[in-house]
Amino acid sequence: MDAGINTFFEPRGVVLVGARSSPGFGYGIPLVLKSHGWEGRTFLVNPRGGELHGMRLHASLADVPGPVDLAVIIVPAPSVAAVLDQAGAKGIRHAVIESAGFAEIGGDGRALQEAALETARRNGIRVVGPNCVGVINTANKFSTIEVIEEAMVPGRTAVIAQSGVFGTVLLDMLHEHDLTISKAVTLGNRMDLDECDFLDYFRDDPGTSVVMMYLEGAADGRRLRESLLALAPSKPVLVLKSGRTASGKAATASHTASLSGEDEIYQALFRQTGAIRADTIEELVEMTRTFATSPLPKGNRLGIVTSSGSLGVMSTDMAVSSGLVVPELSESSREAIRAGSPAWMNVRNPVDVGPSPMFAAALEALLADDDIDMVLAITVLPYVIFKTVTGKGSSGRNWFGDLGEIRSRFPDKPLVQCAVGHHEFVDRMRRIAGPAVPLFIAPEPAVRSLAAMYQYSKRIKGTGTFIH
Amino acid sequence: MDAGINTFFEPRGVVLVGARSSPGFGYGIPLVLKSHGWEGRTFLVNPRGGELHGMRLHASLADVPGPVDLAVIIVPAPSVAAVLDQAGAKGIRHAVIESAGFAEIGGDGRALQEAALETARRNGIRVVGPNCVGVINTANKFSTIEVIEEAMVPGRTAVIAQSGVFGTVLLDMLHEHDLTISKAVTLGNRMDLDECDFLDYFRDDPGTSVVMMYLEGAADGRRLRESLLALAPSKPVLVLKSGRTASGKAATASHTASLSGEDEIYQALFRQTGAIRADTIEELVEMTRTFATSPLPKGNRLGIVTSSGSLGVMSTDMAVSSGLVVPELSESSREAIRAGSPAWMNVRNPVDVGPSPMFAAALEALLADDDIDMVLAITVLPYVIFKTVTGKGSSGRNWFGDLGEIRSRFPDKPLVQCAVGHHEFVDRMRRIAGPAVPLFIAPEPAVRSLAAMYQYSKRIKGTGTFIH
Repeated sequence: MDAGINTFFEPRGVVLVGARSSPGFGYGIPLVLKSHGWEGRTFLVNPRGGELHGMRLHASLADVPGPVDLAVIIVPAPSVAAVLDQAGAKGIRHAVIESAGFAEIGGDGRALQEAALETARRNGIRVVGPNCVGVINTANKFSTIEVIEEAMVPGRTAVIAQSGVFGTVLLDMLHEHDLTISKAVTLGNRMDLDECDFLDYFRDDPGTSVVMMYLEGAADGRRLRESLLALAPSKPVLVLKSGRTASGKAATASHTASLSGEDEIYQALFRQTGAIRADTIEELVEMTRTFATSPLPKGNRLGIVTSSGSLGVMSTDMAVSSGLVVPELSESSREAIRAGSPAWMNVRNPVDVGPSPMFAAALEALLADDDIDMVLAITVLPYVIFKTVTGKGSSGRNWFGDLGEIRSRFPDKPLVQCAVGHHEFVDRMRRIAGPAVPLFIAPEPAVRSLAAMYQYSKRIKGTGTFIH
Repeated sequence: MDAGINTFFEPRGVVLVGARSSPGFGYGIPLVLKSHGWEGRTFLVNPRGGELHGMRLHASLADVPGPVDLAVIIVPAPSVAAVLDQAGAKGIRHAVIESAGFAEIGGDGRALQEAALETARRNGIRVVGPNCVGVINTANKFSTIEVIEEAMVPGRTAVIAQSGVFGTVLLDMLHEHDLTISKAVTLGNRMDLDECDFLDYFRDDPGTSVVMMYLEGAADGRRLRESLLALAPSKPVLVLKSGRTASGKAATASHTASLSGEDEIYQALFRQTGAIRADTIEELVEMTRTFATSPLPKGNRLGIVTSSGSLGVMSTDMAVSSGLVVPELSESSREAIRAGSPAWMNVRNPVDVGPSPMFAAALEALLADDDIDMVLAITVLPYVIFKTVTGKGSSGRNWFGDLGEIRSRFPDKPLVQCAVGHHEFVDRMRRIAGPAVPLFIAPEPAVRSLAAMYQYSKRIKGTGTFIH
């Protein structure tokens, strides 16, 4: 059955039950909706009546005049079932329940959740939550989440987060990594809709190219497998799954009222379905950004150009232990780089250009080389020297080349940058390369992201066993 | 034999051979020395004579008037041996050779290095380098390294780096992590002095409490073992060792002319000696900072207080897989936290205070609990909510408590903070806690650093097998 998920992201009108003038969601969400052009389609309910942010507070849901097909519910847990009945009577078939105090606290909360679910089912209402913060759609600026403005910039990555707080904090970080989103959903206790419903939805969502997901445990392992199998071949799915250990699982149980399965089972599930597992938050964000900005590699041959030999070594270590190879360069690449290089420069892969001005030339040679499938550019310069160089009219672009421009001339291979050192140096390198070249502040995650792309690419082409 | 290492850090006078007015070390290092009060003790040599930065250029080393006991040599590789002879004739017994073009380029370079070494030995000169950037001593502001001013702030961590560029870039980053140094040395090709000489020196250096080291390969594995065994019990040694894989080793060979040993051997060496191995640059810096600022833990029992359940789960996962335990709380701690807590708050470890104002109280309870050996404080708040809270006269200190002040009242256990989200939120949390509370931007490295402290502590107390 089609759950009509799209209504959560594109409601004709939304009613917010539990709007109020004291701090909290009931105060903040109406403001978010109003400031994004939703004032005319947003209706607020509070039995005391009056106004909030210049918008009328309706005494009951039944009084709401406009067409509404989505209810956002923020009232205390014991009142939620009654609100669902009122919403049903109004013809509403979709609800986001943000209220906490349900199964995640056990005992009475569990009973309240069962009653709410029974009421929703009786009324034919599909539910996101409870104990969540709902959804965002950047295309039409619809949001039930109080979030920073930068998170509303439209992009092509969808976010699924089990936890509301974690989902919001993740959205706080993404723009700093040049990652923009299409839609986001936080699932909370998943009393009705779960990650599978949204994975299925994003598979057919033309605005979404990549999906990132945070899970503490699957709502239904078998369905998750089916949803991932269906989605992963066409759109990369990056997953952070916590609750790996027995103690972690115990902590999970009290948090969003789910029990994590055994980690080995998840590991196998992700491997078999082609989902890409990240081990940390940073890795989740960094890998997603790489998938969101890069073409898939044709193979696992990594070319490295670096201004620091040490970082070239570290990158090679990580590449080899991640299933990539760092091959010898072809004679044509060697010749292209050797022309103009100082005698001391050792022309091999990694190409360590040291303090020579050969960085851009070496980078272009690697990108042009048919025997290289992906390229890592390691830009490192002691900050004092960088300041001297840039103080003399050079932007830093002259030193390492215009990475963004080079990227645009060689669009067919993954190219990522690693800049290590002073934060002002790193920021400058980020600006020079632009959002099309993912920037990492350490070599290991840069290489791991490239390795993940290779593994995914191999998997969807069916050319080998998928191991990652 | 005492190599007189201290002269490298506290020379009476220094002569710089190869000073010049064109860009490079010969231009920059005299400026560094002059700007740090060393003008009167610095003598510059260039056959063309004249002046540089208002300092006289002497035509030859023999012409230098003042007392000098250290030579810094920047002339091209083929001229280095001759300069060493002149230095020897002048009575100088210590030299830093920054010039490149020696064994790291193979062939002729190798022959030049052998000739330079023979000349140094004949003159009784101990050498740092070649192919390095030399040393820093923050106490007397002596530096042969062009480095940012923040790296010259005195601290208690010594740095040993095999590579000059990497060493400098590392120094560019440290202040951003509130890490200050006592002394630093970059080793380069290690034709004479190597990491062991400096490990031995730092063992007896009263200004140094912690040592961080970057190696591509040991100069002498057996000696390294002895030096680490002697040093590690009194001062923690954090090591980043690259060249782990066969390809990485091949890359190393061309970089600083050393061959990495097998990684398993190093792993065993570090484990047996009590040195703490970091896997990445970030981990090296973060672990070092934790050791530099924290007391050692008495055991492996971790208490976690968090405003995000998800991050509590991730931290528990990492703790358990790193050899820590996340125990049930004692009844007294539970009571202390329960008093004043909302009914929905689940009082267990990790203590997930959610949006309640219980963060500081829970943190103090864990720090006071005799059954907890170390504490992780996870401060997370959606940025929009943080701005609302702090916009109303609260500094954020009111929300999570004054972590720096709490730290000062409970100085006996490691306490680290993890702040995740918007960079302005993270910066604010960093300022609130101050440098005495290491701040991490992800839970996993925070927990790994605590685990490293536990392993080290167990090792030096001899209470168990050392595994990390």
